[in-house]
Amino acid sequence: MVKLTAQNRHDYAQSVLRAINAENIQQFRELFFELHPQDQLEIYLETSHSQRQKMYEYLSPEEFAEIFEELQIEDQKKYLLELNETYAQDMISHMSADNVADFLGEIHETKASAIIEGLEEKDAQDIKELLAYEEETAGAIMTKEFISLRASSTIKEVIEVLRQEGPDAETIYYLYVINEKFELVGVVSLRDLITSEPDSLVETVMSSRVVSVPTSEDQENVATLFKKYDFLAVPVTTETNKLVGIITVDDILDVMEEEATEDIGEFAASRGATDLTLSAFSAAKKRAPWIILLMFFGMITAGVIGQFEETLESVVLLAGFIPLIMDSAGNTGTQSLAVAVRSLALGQLEKKSLSKMVMREFGTGLMLGLMCAVTLMIIIPFLHGSVWLAFIVGVSIFLSLSIATVIGTIVPLAINKMKLDPAIASGPFITTVNDIIGLLIYFSIATSLIAYL
Amino acid sequence: MVKLTAQNRHDYAQSVLRAINAENIQQFRELFFELHPQDQLEIYLETSHSQRQKMYEYLSPEEFAEIFEELQIEDQKKYLLELNETYAQDMISHMSADNVADFLGEIHETKASAIIEGLEEKDAQDIKELLAYEEETAGAIMTKEFISLRASSTIKEVIEVLRQEGPDAETIYYLYVINEKFELVGVVSLRDLITSEPDSLVETVMSSRVVSVPTSEDQENVATLFKKYDFLAVPVTTETNKLVGIITVDDILDVMEEEATEDIGEFAASRGATDLTLSAFSAAKKRAPWIILLMFFGMITAGVIGQFEETLESVVLLAGFIPLIMDSAGNTGTQSLAVAVRSLALGQLEKKSLSKMVMREFGTGLMLGLMCAVTLMIIIPFLHGSVWLAFIVGVSIFLSLSIATVIGTIVPLAINKMKLDPAIASGPFITTVNDIIGLLIYFSIATSLIAYL
Repeated sequence: MVKLTAQNRHDYAQSVLRAINAENIQQFRELFFELHPQDQLEIYLETSHSQRQKMYEYLSPEEFAEIFEELQIEDQKKYLLELNETYAQDMISHMSADNVADFLGEIHETKASAIIEGLEEKDAQDIKELLAYEEETAGAIMTKEFISLRASSTIKEVIEVLRQEGPDAETIYYLYVINEKFELVGVVSLRDLITSEPDSLVETVMSSRVVSVPTSEDQENVATLFKKYDFLAVPVTTETNKLVGIITVDDILDVMEEEATEDIGEFAASRGATDLTLSAFSAAKKRAPWIILLMFFGMITAGVIGQFEETLESVVLLAGFIPLIMDSAGNTGTQSLAVAVRSLALGQLEKKSLSKMVMREFGTGLMLGLMCAVTLMIIIPFLHGSVWLAFIVGVSIFLSLSIATVIGTIVPLAINKMKLDPAIASGPFITTVNDIIGLLIYFSIATSLIAYL
Repeated sequence: MVKLTAQNRHDYAQSVLRAINAENIQQFRELFFELHPQDQLEIYLETSHSQRQKMYEYLSPEEFAEIFEELQIEDQKKYLLELNETYAQDMISHMSADNVADFLGEIHETKASAIIEGLEEKDAQDIKELLAYEEETAGAIMTKEFISLRASSTIKEVIEVLRQEGPDAETIYYLYVINEKFELVGVVSLRDLITSEPDSLVETVMSSRVVSVPTSEDQENVATLFKKYDFLAVPVTTETNKLVGIITVDDILDVMEEEATEDIGEFAASRGATDLTLSAFSAAKKRAPWIILLMFFGMITAGVIGQFEETLESVVLLAGFIPLIMDSAGNTGTQSLAVAVRSLALGQLEKKSLSKMVMREFGTGLMLGLMCAVTLMIIIPFLHGSVWLAFIVGVSIFLSLSIATVIGTIVPLAINKMKLDPAIASGPFITTVNDIIGLLIYFSIATSLIAYL
């Protein structure tokens, strides 16, 4: 298989496209099948409409299925329309059930049903089963392409089965043992198989205490399991311990990427909008609710400041430090939020750690607040000549930062405990709350000490 | 192997501890070795000092090495001190070279050298080699425990080798083929081995075009390779294509977790401070530079507002909307930053996508700005009676948001292009820049229209 490097990628792609243009089927297939499906995919995405029409003639539905499976869902929807119905139906019948389910779950229901109707009974059943599972659970991400064994088989017989069915299974490195009721009773690794006598029974080689997950398990928890035990695959069972699918580690890499994207998106209150393929309007629609909500919070701050109009009228200079107080409190709170959010995501928090973390963050806030206060109380008198102003700003900063860290830590923890939507603990929300508190502190202190300014 | 569920975990741990207390070596070992090393580890972490002293007598250095390898580095440093020198040296000699290198890289150099001196020549060499690689590169995360084959061997011979050396290798699912100069020439999967005739040569079964990475490759790029091609392992070579190690997918799960933690930390300008084990002082030290730097930016905003002191004196009400303008601009910019940062991390950006993304974000900013402006221009006249004030605030918001999205997008892209530290593109930095711009816009408009207020 050719490894495409940055240098030869372009040239190789050019020769493939040339072969298509020259309608040289032989040459095209020779070049194309030297590539890993992922690289075939990249070339496919560079083709023009007419070039693709030729490719559909040069590639069997089964061969094209391998490329189609790797496409992003938006591209799948787009390119499916280019295929004639027979070709499409045939291609889909060669895709693995979990990939078909993922695709059908995103298209219009009537069209999905029509496609399922055209499939073989067994495939249709598998796909319907997978579609029934809730998104982002073990059932939704598992594959049904696995090999199961009986405890009474010999190693020799198993290896014979592997020779035949091996190529179709998602993985043959872990093989699951079931009984006559399809219940999961054990697991054998290919490594164990290799190192065992050919005549021994699966029963003697297998490990009977096997880690599995229920179909309802959240995909994040499944990922945690993989990270903890370094598994290559994990079996998925029903509530009655019947084996219905497996999840392989490559799917977990995708899950982890998805979860990290979600986390950053939630952190910046832009959940679901980090997708580049969205149009400006769709992105704005997704992000607007938060921005408008936070703007209302802004109206509250305007009201808060309005309460202190007299104070401001006498010392307009106070207005100058509003941004500084707000930004410092906001930034410090965001830092604490990052710590809390990450610790929650990594499952690092147990009962005693919670209070420990809040105390740690409070201590950090105190020290940061002190550092900033001292810095300001040195600079401000130089720049503005007023020691009292420096005092007011310094004390306000000190109190604001101390409180900001605590809020940035406690809010996500509380939300996590209440099992609410973590998006509420987004960066902008915490920032706005800290801003309001910082302003209240600032103006209250300023107002009480107004006589000295 | 026992699978510990939430229910039986506590009871099982109790019975293990009881066995230790009763000094019942047989019972302890029976119960303990039913567990996966990760679960053994959790019980180990619950023991008292005296219980651990007994464990060190009940477990051979080789057996304890399996647990020690799984400990976090801080715990490793702590618990190493509990072992007598002979036991410790023996235990370390049974750890895999990459785990020893990871550990020694974090302790005092003289102590590390002393430990290396006490090891066998081959092990010591391997460890010194691994320690020489730069952190977070392929060389630093690879393992030297792999099996290599010669092209001239038969499948039968290979399987015989696997039976013997199999248990020690990190993985036997991909086997790498080298020539007499130790250069990487091919790869065979165990799946291919199984499904081939025993008398065929490795040469005929292997794939000669094998994807490998140089020792200097950044770990993030290695992770991208795994995600793209769904590999279980990837070989690591020197510049002259000599095979020196392999990276397995379970290590990539750890790399991805590390990188996601770094990303969130950088996003919130709290890089390196998301570690819960840091003391409040250490955390404050790490976060202070940013907070103080941003506070100076705050002084700039104070100066900006100071320039408009006259404007403020005449219409103190203007001060009330400072937070609203700042927060909305800041939040919108942060959302855009999240989109850009995530796209960069996922390697989704190519030349045309760049301008496409900036345009998309600009469009989103325009729409969000419009939504906010319209909302405010309806509310403000009701609450404050001034249509001109509403106009000023509305137009300021519209312009600020449009610019904020562009800045939130362009800055990280520019930084990425200049190959600078992405931490500069942190949330707080972008927020502060957008705040300053928003304030300048706001007060400029207000000052020019001051006659109408």
